Amino acid sequence: MGAVLKRALVGSRGKYLAFSVGFNKICTSRCQKQPQTLKNLSPNYPLAAVRENPDLNSFVFRTHTCGELRAVHIGQEVTLCGWVQYRRQDLFIVLRDFDGLIQIILPQEETAAQLKKILCDISLESVITVTGTVISRPSGQANPNMVTGEIEVRVQSAEVLNSSRKLPFETKELVKKSEALRMRYRYLDLRSSQLQYNLRLRSRMVMRMREYLCNLHGFVDVETPTLFKRTPGGAKEFVVPSREPGKFYSLPQSPQQFKQLLMVGGLDRYFQVARCYRDEGSKPDRQPEFTQIDIEMSFVNQASIQKLIEGLIEYSWPEEKGTITLPFPSITYAEAMGSYGVDKPDTRFGMKITDVSEVFRDADVSFLRDALGQPCGVVRSISVPKGVVSVAIFYSADRQQSDVTFVTLQPDGTWKSVLTKLLTDGEKSELCRAAGARVGDVLILTAGDPNTANAALGKLRLECATILESKGVALRDHNAFNFLWVVDFPLFLPKEGNPEELESAHHPFTAPHPEDAYLMCTEPQKVRSQHYDLVLNGNEIGGGSIRIHDMELQHYVLETVLKEDTGLLLHLLEALDSGAPPHGGIALGLDRLIALTVGASSIRDVIAFPKSFRGRDLMSNAPDLVSPEELSTYHIQVSQPAGSESSQAHYPP
Amino acid sequence: MGAVLKRALVGSRGKYLAFSVGFNKICTSRCQKQPQTLKNLSPNYPLAAVRENPDLNSFVFRTHTCGELRAVHIGQEVTLCGWVQYRRQDLFIVLRDFDGLIQIILPQEETAAQLKKILCDISLESVITVTGTVISRPSGQANPNMVTGEIEVRVQSAEVLNSSRKLPFETKELVKKSEALRMRYRYLDLRSSQLQYNLRLRSRMVMRMREYLCNLHGFVDVETPTLFKRTPGGAKEFVVPSREPGKFYSLPQSPQQFKQLLMVGGLDRYFQVARCYRDEGSKPDRQPEFTQIDIEMSFVNQASIQKLIEGLIEYSWPEEKGTITLPFPSITYAEAMGSYGVDKPDTRFGMKITDVSEVFRDADVSFLRDALGQPCGVVRSISVPKGVVSVAIFYSADRQQSDVTFVTLQPDGTWKSVLTKLLTDGEKSELCRAAGARVGDVLILTAGDPNTANAALGKLRLECATILESKGVALRDHNAFNFLWVVDFPLFLPKEGNPEELESAHHPFTAPHPEDAYLMCTEPQKVRSQHYDLVLNGNEIGGGSIRIHDMELQHYVLETVLKEDTGLLLHLLEALDSGAPPHGGIALGLDRLIALTVGASSIRDVIAFPKSFRGRDLMSNAPDLVSPEELSTYHIQVSQPAGSESSQAHYPP
Repeated sequence: MGAVLKRALVGSRGKYLAFSVGFNKICTSRCQKQPQTLKNLSPNYPLAAVRENPDLNSFVFRTHTCGELRAVHIGQEVTLCGWVQYRRQDLFIVLRDFDGLIQIILPQEETAAQLKKILCDISLESVITVTGTVISRPSGQANPNMVTGEIEVRVQSAEVLNSSRKLPFETKELVKKSEALRMRYRYLDLRSSQLQYNLRLRSRMVMRMREYLCNLHGFVDVETPTLFKRTPGGAKEFVVPSREPGKFYSLPQSPQQFKQLLMVGGLDRYFQVARCYRDEGSKPDRQPEFTQIDIEMSFVNQASIQKLIEGLIEYSWPEEKGTITLPFPSITYAEAMGSYGVDKPDTRFGMKITDVSEVFRDADVSFLRDALGQPCGVVRSISVPKGVVSVAIFYSADRQQSDVTFVTLQPDGTWKSVLTKLLTDGEKSELCRAAGARVGDVLILTAGDPNTANAALGKLRLECATILESKGVALRDHNAFNFLWVVDFPLFLPKEGNPEELESAHHPFTAPHPEDAYLMCTEPQKVRSQHYDLVLNGNEIGGGSIRIHDMELQHYVLETVLKEDTGLLLHLLEALDSGAPPHGGIALGLDRLIALTVGASSIRDVIAFPKSFRGRDLMSNAPDLVSPEELSTYHIQVSQPAGSESSQAHYPP
Repeated sequence: MGAVLKRALVGSRGKYLAFSVGFNKICTSRCQKQPQTLKNLSPNYPLAAVRENPDLNSFVFRTHTCGELRAVHIGQEVTLCGWVQYRRQDLFIVLRDFDGLIQIILPQEETAAQLKKILCDISLESVITVTGTVISRPSGQANPNMVTGEIEVRVQSAEVLNSSRKLPFETKELVKKSEALRMRYRYLDLRSSQLQYNLRLRSRMVMRMREYLCNLHGFVDVETPTLFKRTPGGAKEFVVPSREPGKFYSLPQSPQQFKQLLMVGGLDRYFQVARCYRDEGSKPDRQPEFTQIDIEMSFVNQASIQKLIEGLIEYSWPEEKGTITLPFPSITYAEAMGSYGVDKPDTRFGMKITDVSEVFRDADVSFLRDALGQPCGVVRSISVPKGVVSVAIFYSADRQQSDVTFVTLQPDGTWKSVLTKLLTDGEKSELCRAAGARVGDVLILTAGDPNTANAALGKLRLECATILESKGVALRDHNAFNFLWVVDFPLFLPKEGNPEELESAHHPFTAPHPEDAYLMCTEPQKVRSQHYDLVLNGNEIGGGSIRIHDMELQHYVLETVLKEDTGLLLHLLEALDSGAPPHGGIALGLDRLIALTVGASSIRDVIAFPKSFRGRDLMSNAPDLVSPEELSTYHIQVSQPAGSESSQAHYPP
């Protein structure tokens, strides 16, 4: 045993000893370098002047980061700490830290032979500290592709702080490896400049959101519990067994109840960067835990919350991503469904849905005329610009759905379609006019009830966009950030599986639209809500509402409309009856917002330690088995699904 | 059912209708009042100038808060929103919001009879909005006890936004009620100025900590998962069943592993306001979930982290609590135990432990001489100033422990003690000199091994302080904030129950003190650690360490010293072997720090929705029963403790 430690302390690689000695040396020299004191950072010091320029070298061994050195530093003695990224023969090392890369020139003098040997023997990804002088690179050897490419550091002394084993792959190659491997070795993946950028941008944007909310608008950052009670219909809530037999906490999907109770408590304006939990099993690009910017205000209306959020986005938006134009456009749910076939339209491109029913009202196309004859029957279309470039794909077998009809407007002016012979020339040009289609486009038609027709075309619209872009057609500007409000959602929707009953379109605390309140008793299915969604490039990144603050209305919604057990929400109903102010709020999905901002394809690229799509931590192997003894504290035992009794046997002895 | 809603919409109290109508009216008028736009709050605007003056009236119906009105507003028309705190006959209402109280004068003209009636009929704690003119109070009627006491608002129009039921108690009385009642009606308790202050100060202090860390020193705010894997020895970790049969997540007690992995990942400087979980069953003033300011840095030593934290505390310290002097004093663990008998000394008062062994080495006190004859035997004492005022308490039966001896130095110069006749006059004065005792003091002596003697006296020292203060002796300055570092803790301690084996004094990732590293193989029990605690007024408010960054040393500690299963930490060992920089950090207990700062007696007074000491949410009644069907998703079932099969039967049908 002692031998193991001896190796650790003084052993073959000599690294602990090296560090232990080097450490003291460094301590001494660091203690002489006074860390930045706070005298010149008093509360009256204008933060704006320093905020974009934090001191990255306060309190640490280094004098500079690798990435900050420039020609202006030539002649200075610097101490750097970082990872060995690359080594060329015995000439130089490229040293890396979070801030960038710098070239270190090894000493070639005979007197520095030992120092040179140490640096030549060190493995890649080992951690070293280097002290040396910044010098200009020899004429003609500057590297314009490297921000530190004009200079290099001639090393005078160096220490190995920790050596690395030979890694199973080069870390810079990791980004090209499978996601499973990247997650297994997340601590290596985090060294990539992309993940460093993503996490730092996330931190910076959240910090600016906090400044906007706290410092500019007096919001109070309040932490709410995550060990809570199961909510009605909370089928996706994780349970947490307690020491009380048979009793469980629940990890909430959002702090909805708490934020409303804070308003009842007179807190006036609340926000929280809130961790939320949702057990959705295996869904791609969902995480069992996620983060939302959670906001609630008293004495507010929908327009004001929208203005607040527009200001928040503008204030926190990273400069390098261009400017944001306020106010964000707004469309109603009905318009969104009618024009885009979805409630989160991507407005970076057109291809809107148009109604072409009139063209077919009298035309001799029986299957369309029949559809129009049904109650509410419509014929609708989208026109795919330059659709002919990918016409083969549209005609692939799985797209030949019976209820979708394609018309290719071929470059020679002729039609390719089952409709070609069924329509007169006049009807053809009338259709093109109504649908806004031109030569080279592909026209997609569908018939049926409006909801089904819109949904089908909305899906095809997005699929076509992806296909067109894969064929090189420039359709969506991938540097554009199209924020959009969607408003006037329905308050209730027919229940899936039982359309005679209603369920909340969002949640049961959403207030009805004032103009529709008179319909609550008679035709609740027609009532619009004061719910609003924030959409970015076709992704929902936030949603909120004005809440019901009237106890009796809330009780009516829960008991009469939704047939929920109000017992589970008695505390909320009592609170509403104890002087609840009118209030409303919103929650922004932070992971998605950051992912869209940095252009990441998955939210896993903006989360430090994400779970796999099966909800597993591939680095630590969570979730894991727990012994029956440990479970007995919580009065639970595992009930194996029938026919799979083996898994418990795997518990390590 | 419709009748219920009708009551809600237009019913006897008429409140929904009033709101519904009033709401539109307010919307319209608000829309004309442009919310503060961001043009004048661009990123270049010096935040410092606005940070202490957030706009509390942006985006809302009111023009001013109740608490901000002063004589300077006389003549202005204002709109206020708030709660009816108090009403005197038909003359005035006191309106309250989070910011304060304001007196509203009811109209006495015949033409305003209806308005007056509405305001006279409204119940206390109802929510109203009022528009009126700020006027000076009549001569001689100013209220100097009220910051708005020079003025009042003559109401012109008003609306009831929500009426309150008659509450079971007056909210201002709630603070005097039982804690259980306060927690049951937490949303009412939150309306108290004390809780409003506590939560707002908490938000403000955390925001300033973030500014210091992010904006001044470039720390990156990284969120780490709370659904994780059980850690070795994590007996206090809540488990969370997953959908994989028999597999569980664990809610971590701290992000310790993640913060170290972030350093391996090159993140350089990390912080997080981290929610942590610890299942300690029923412990007073502990919460199953709590918050820590979690910090980790690479390329750092202990002194630098201490400097960082001192700067953090100074920067975030609320002005109204006085100034903080830097640097904080520091004592070693050995000194703390020797002088105060605890590792978290309250240095606001003296009564230090002194060694008086020499006095008794030759004295004729057999039981003390015998104790001194044992290996390491000592006699130690504390001198309780003015102890005679509470002498009766010291002599109460349960304090007459066999190993504690009292000496009362009575005002007349005589002794009251079993030692009176056993010591010579010379020995008596020598004892008083050695112990620093004077007439009027009570001297407490104990004999035995140093650890036991110190622990006993340390406990008595604190008990005596409490007793003396209860008798009116001014001992501790309750406006003083004595921060103190405690350093040089032992790395390992003998295991409770099995003193032949060692366990980590803090956690297995703590690095040994460089001066003691040579003892790791031979006498690990003698090795000091690079752990440091931050103590405030006798409470531990933070702890941290320089971590082991060498894989082999970490492996040796886990396997050889601690006999832990290294398999559970393979990912961490692999990470340390992949180029881990030297690193260290700290975690501050935010709840405790804020509670001490505001002078709250319990951390429950600085948490918006705390749990009872049994871990229950008394408002919502969590934890609660969950149906067997819901549990089956997670492949668990409840195993009732023997003889208590009834509880499952309580599950609501």
